[in-house]
Amino acid sequence: MWPDRRLIDLVKTELPIVQAPMAGAMDAELVIAASQGGALGSLPCAALSVEKIREQMGDIGARAAGPINLNFFCHPALEDEPSRQGHWLERLAPYYASLGLDPRAATAATGRTPFDAASLDLVLELKPAVVSFHFGLPDAVMTGRLKAAGIVVMSSATTVAEAVWLERHGVDAVIAQGAEAGGHRGSFLAGSVAAQPGTFALVPQVVDAVRVPVIAAGGIADGRGIAAAFALGAAGVQIGTAYLRCPEAKISAPFRAALGTAADDSTVITNVMSGRPARGIYNKIMRELGPMSADAPAFPHAAKALAPLRAAAEARGSSDFSALWAGQSVALTRAMPAADLTRSLAAAGRKRLEELAR
Amino acid sequence: MWPDRRLIDLVKTELPIVQAPMAGAMDAELVIAASQGGALGSLPCAALSVEKIREQMGDIGARAAGPINLNFFCHPALEDEPSRQGHWLERLAPYYASLGLDPRAATAATGRTPFDAASLDLVLELKPAVVSFHFGLPDAVMTGRLKAAGIVVMSSATTVAEAVWLERHGVDAVIAQGAEAGGHRGSFLAGSVAAQPGTFALVPQVVDAVRVPVIAAGGIADGRGIAAAFALGAAGVQIGTAYLRCPEAKISAPFRAALGTAADDSTVITNVMSGRPARGIYNKIMRELGPMSADAPAFPHAAKALAPLRAAAEARGSSDFSALWAGQSVALTRAMPAADLTRSLAAAGRKRLEELAR
Repeated sequence: MWPDRRLIDLVKTELPIVQAPMAGAMDAELVIAASQGGALGSLPCAALSVEKIREQMGDIGARAAGPINLNFFCHPALEDEPSRQGHWLERLAPYYASLGLDPRAATAATGRTPFDAASLDLVLELKPAVVSFHFGLPDAVMTGRLKAAGIVVMSSATTVAEAVWLERHGVDAVIAQGAEAGGHRGSFLAGSVAAQPGTFALVPQVVDAVRVPVIAAGGIADGRGIAAAFALGAAGVQIGTAYLRCPEAKISAPFRAALGTAADDSTVITNVMSGRPARGIYNKIMRELGPMSADAPAFPHAAKALAPLRAAAEARGSSDFSALWAGQSVALTRAMPAADLTRSLAAAGRKRLEELAR
Repeated sequence: MWPDRRLIDLVKTELPIVQAPMAGAMDAELVIAASQGGALGSLPCAALSVEKIREQMGDIGARAAGPINLNFFCHPALEDEPSRQGHWLERLAPYYASLGLDPRAATAATGRTPFDAASLDLVLELKPAVVSFHFGLPDAVMTGRLKAAGIVVMSSATTVAEAVWLERHGVDAVIAQGAEAGGHRGSFLAGSVAAQPGTFALVPQVVDAVRVPVIAAGGIADGRGIAAAFALGAAGVQIGTAYLRCPEAKISAPFRAALGTAADDSTVITNVMSGRPARGIYNKIMRELGPMSADAPAFPHAAKALAPLRAAAEARGSSDFSALWAGQSVALTRAMPAADLTRSLAAAGRKRLEELAR
């Protein structure tokens, strides 16, 4: 039924599809629907408290029978630097003025915390089938404890060197995140964003470099993309942007509208929204301060000063200051419920594979 | 035998493979070998005089029976601006000094000329099966005369908008050039290089937007890539970097050495070598002045002041100032004769398509 069953055998899903965890854009509802459709449902935990994760997993367990993936960030927990934050606020001051806001309204926290001891205890208690990481892996002791508990561990690689590093450090599968992918680049070794390969080049080179199954990510939004990922040697796909179009996604009306009109060349990689490079739909703040800026404070602190601007603008129907994370195939997506989307993606992928054999 | 025969039917080749024209890196010898292997052999004419093109086509006609593609640039013929060129030479002065060269040695010409009336007369005389263009198309009268003569006309698109424009202006096939591709971006409408999609995202969106056959280019270097291109909806592939590894390619020893050691993340898009964005292996001059620089004179004039530096450095075995054009899948390539490469790519592509059907 699928040319490669290694991912299905590893994570025990019906389909070789991972619904991408998208922090700030979704909750249990999308996880449940994607899981009901046969995908690996993934809950993004980077912005959630321990209590909230436990509550969400309770909802998921009650309504979805399939395996679930809990996703965490493991970025270095850098202190905010007051001088950089002050300079950033100065650069944003004209926008505060134009929206009639007080710069002192900038929030103190960003709600993006790395995987830590409390996260580990929680995961060992909840025992999800899979834990995936972004920005590398936690330390070897933590990773070892997850694996010892029988949890499948995955992480993203944006280069071959990162994939090899991840395999050496114990992952059971590598998510090869091509440059087309929406949201944050999972990079943790790679220096230049400009040098990171597209999905078409990255996937086969990662497949050649590691023994674990490779999950292709970036630009996959229909059956053609699923078939192409298998052709390149992937054992499955991770799909994000297409799930943002689902009614179950928790995104603002301006974000939803932007997704519906974006074209193939509407996105760029920016660091101005959070301090780390991420792909999103080009908007006012990215155009005027970026897309890449040396002024942006370190991740995740660049987001603090943008929060009041985003809230005020979105209330007026504007996405000028919103992180409109989306991949380069956003225009291939259509609005539909997540379980239906999952099944239709799988059916289209299988159909395309059959067509290729003719 | 192939899931889509539209390109084969259009250009009458044995295989749905276009050997990419690579100006400055090849001549008739590679065209002949690729054609003998079953591909559409492509002669890059942007750097050749009318006499030289006639001579090369004579050689090709004597040794290759298959259809041939003549490739031309059609960039706007911008005058060199003395003030910009002077500023550029100032930026390069330290390198001239370090190599013991006189800046007055900078050459007056770059040898990159756009398609013009003389080119048209020549093409109508030589009647190649195919003419392909980079940087758009010549004017409607010229394009019309090529088509009226029964010549298949193709050009490259780096976005959906460019593909639609090309179809409206009469091309018989669109080359969808993803961001992974080595060499010059074919862009002629697209503004930001950063927004140009990768092959995985570009190909299906172009396929949906035009009726003519789409040739996938960028990151394709083995059978997996060929199968994936068909999965995405392409009717064929254009392959460049893999052919640079062939003994028939006319490249310097330092360039050949760089190709043999490059990794997945060794290339970036730069404008410092020529004045237009192009993907190549990161070297000293790209690192220190780019990869993108507002100081570079307009295409092709940035190349003038680099020519003496390149020649002197290459004579010492260094590629510090060379345009090391290569795509992101360069590490998937292996050195072998071009006819063998063509046949082995086709065999691997067919094998991969069969494997997917299991």
